[in-house]
Amino acid sequence: MTQLVALVTGFESYGGHGLNPAGEVVSCVDGLEVDGARVVGRNFPVSFASLRQNIRQTFAEVDPAVVLSLGLWPGEAVVRLERIGINIADFEIPDNEGTVVVDETLNRGAAAARLATLPLRRIQDALLEAGIPARLSSTAGTFLCNATLYSFLREVEDSGKAVRCGFMHLPYAPKQVADMIAKTRAEHSLELHQRADISSMSLETMAEAVRIALSITLADDTDG
Amino acid sequence: MTQLVALVTGFESYGGHGLNPAGEVVSCVDGLEVDGARVVGRNFPVSFASLRQNIRQTFAEVDPAVVLSLGLWPGEAVVRLERIGINIADFEIPDNEGTVVVDETLNRGAAAARLATLPLRRIQDALLEAGIPARLSSTAGTFLCNATLYSFLREVEDSGKAVRCGFMHLPYAPKQVADMIAKTRAEHSLELHQRADISSMSLETMAEAVRIALSITLADDTDG
Amino acid sequence: MTQLVALVTGFESYGGHGLNPAGEVVSCVDGLEVDGARVVGRNFPVSFASLRQNIRQTFAEVDPAVVLSLGLWPGEAVVRLERIGINIADFEIPDNEGTVVVDETLNRGAAAARLATLPLRRIQDALLEAGIPARLSSTAGTFLCNATLYSFLREVEDSGKAVRCGFMHLPYAPKQVADMIAKTRAEHSLELHQRADISSMSLETMAEAVRIALSITLADDTDG
Amino acid sequence: MTQLVALVTGFESYGGHGLNPAGEVVSCVDGLEVDGARVVGRNFPVSFASLRQNIRQTFAEVDPAVVLSLGLWPGEAVVRLERIGINIADFEIPDNEGTVVVDETLNRGAAAARLATLPLRRIQDALLEAGIPARLSSTAGTFLCNATLYSFLREVEDSGKAVRCGFMHLPYAPKQVADMIAKTRAEHSLELHQRADISSMSLETMAEAVRIALSITLADDTDG
Repeated sequence: MTQLVALVTGFESYGGHGLNPAGEVVSCVDGLEVDGARVVGRNFPVSFASLRQNIRQTFAEVDPAVVLSLGLWPGEAVVRLERIGINIADFEIPDNEGTVVVDETLNRGAAAARLATLPLRRIQDALLEAGIPARLSSTAGTFLCNATLYSFLREVEDSGKAVRCGFMHLPYAPKQVADMIAKTRAEHSLELHQRADISSMSLETMAEAVRIALSITLADDTDG
Repeated sequence: MTQLVALVTGFESYGGHGLNPAGEVVSCVDGLEVDGARVVGRNFPVSFASLRQNIRQTFAEVDPAVVLSLGLWPGEAVVRLERIGINIADFEIPDNEGTVVVDETLNRGAAAARLATLPLRRIQDALLEAGIPARLSSTAGTFLCNATLYSFLREVEDSGKAVRCGFMHLPYAPKQVADMIAKTRAEHSLELHQRADISSMSLETMAEAVRIALSITLADDTDG
Repeated sequence: MTQLVALVTGFESYGGHGLNPAGEVVSCVDGLEVDGARVVGRNFPVSFASLRQNIRQTFAEVDPAVVLSLGLWPGEAVVRLERIGINIADFEIPDNEGTVVVDETLNRGAAAARLATLPLRRIQDALLEAGIPARLSSTAGTFLCNATLYSFLREVEDSGKAVRCGFMHLPYAPKQVADMIAKTRAEHSLELHQRADISSMSLETMAEAVRIALSITLADDTDG
Repeated sequence: MTQLVALVTGFESYGGHGLNPAGEVVSCVDGLEVDGARVVGRNFPVSFASLRQNIRQTFAEVDPAVVLSLGLWPGEAVVRLERIGINIADFEIPDNEGTVVVDETLNRGAAAARLATLPLRRIQDALLEAGIPARLSSTAGTFLCNATLYSFLREVEDSGKAVRCGFMHLPYAPKQVADMIAKTRAEHSLELHQRADISSMSLETMAEAVRIALSITLADDTDG
């Protein structure tokens, strides 16, 4: 019997945020075994132009039973489980290729949104039980994170397979915030003391959150 | 030669916040050796009536070379090094004995404020270097944390000793936020998804921040 | 020729928030003429059980050319134009009848989401031009506001009419925040000084934002 | 009998924030009569080098019975009444002459802090009564606003006169936030949708808050 694969995706750095915790966490969990499934980690470039193709190709290659994508939500204080990907792309800042998309659809004529198919509430309960702050969210934004969720859900739908699929937004890693504060002090560039959006979470905790989310999903698959 | 003592104080739980990270961190560091000094940890009850007496007695008993007091700042995202304790007490919520003090002074006729005497900027630099987010703050509030800073500085001043003294505010521990979210969901009591003030930091990181702050202070003492 | 009608809906008070700015603004604009159209204002009870029926009935009775629904987003700092209504209901607090809905759909088997059909970007541009802070938002939450947007869009779709339809979230009115602070001080119930989510906007500005949104939409209708 | 003078000071623009609401409000109230007193408004350049001299000279020239200084606190949501000015200057961003002061005292060897002498709680009560959100604050920061409060209190002390003196921090004006959003969209420079610190308050409300604060202070003077 073939071993089940859980695909966990992240992103490279972008937007001047230094390291990307999503990418770091992907490196942490790549190769792990979770409840008998093998974790395959993949990091995508922050490129809107190639995102769809990268998703399609990765999905085909890895043939996962579960897809959990990760991304940074700057300022978020807790693990954030996205309920829905929407058919909108609208960027506040450019991606790493300088592309700025304004008020576009991801897939012209297709559904306005797709619902994540992970057992989100059970995952949240398990995270809270483990002492990891987590909440459900009704928006993944309109940048590449949302596009990833929407596009993976579309990919799964097109494949006709029973693959469970969702997105987890992560806070900054502590080192990112430390570096941001140091840079701000060095450059006198920002009134940071008045800002509340510099929450962070340890990479260990975030990696544990991913492990728990996969475990709950795989168990739920077995039941379902 | 007598071993130097670094006194680290915290508080018991209060205000329905569950565990107090300050108290937890005090337990973590109590008994450690930092650069040859012995750490003595003490947790105070959240009682305004007994605070002054507890500070006076602890200071006399422990005879510390350094005092670093800790407290929770709900919603704070980073380690927060207080520059100043002010001669004001004004409570938004009662202490654990039900006392609410409104627009009072801590020490009638005394100085409007006292400046912390830790090497705050060096501590911040060392914390950032270690990847721990930290900032200097110009207010410790007007509840018991500020009273502790002001009163310890007064105690040191009255003693005529060269004791360095300061206050570090801490974010929630992750488990606190997890419990708060779970409680909110169970009781349907709060619109929490709209709240940004649920940052947390791991107890390990906070304990490490205390260790670094003491180490920098002790080294600075040697120089000074 | 019949005069066009612009329907503006709001809500009664809920959740202990005192007056509802949405309800107040509806009263401000009810009966106005905007670019030849007559504004009809209606306030709904904060009742999930009756919401769908109230929407259906109001839509049939008023026969509007434009629907702009309003609601309070506690803590929001600016006028917030919702891009999308999603097929999810999940309440953090009860509605005014004590109903708490958890992880439900609004319309089983129907679309995961519906996109608002107002010219949102043009409205935002006009608001900014007029000095009124405004942003586009990709979530209307999962309480009655989102249900209203989703349900009105469904109603329009079912009717087959070319009615433009959207939702504007509003900050607190200043008086609400003033009352909240006064209550907090009187009851010693809350650590409010650490909270950032007490933004407000004057009712006059919010009413003007509604007028501008209707005007842009009506002009856009004429073009379209 | 000479007419009493209430001095209200503000600042010119700085830090790329566009107009300064403090400066605008000073223009609004300059020349008003409040309870028999004449309001004299003065705006200072955002220059640390000249601040002390400007304060000294203005105080001597105007010979006020009351001093109320105003400044912008970016991100603040309500009228903020400062309790205390501290003997610290530490800038995150340069003043308008490019000066960055780091961890300095304002007045070497002088008091660590001075308490504002306005009847702050009565002013807050009157503002809340009038439906204007307001809170007391225990820090005016460490930039020019704090320096202004500390220096005016010092000036009053040196003069030996019974002049009541304080500082009111103001939110952004709505137009500032509108312009900031428009600029951000045009430049793709900032992830603003994730930011909560874009509260604003109408200039009319802020001017009314100043009028109320002066009125309460003047009445309190008569009593005292």
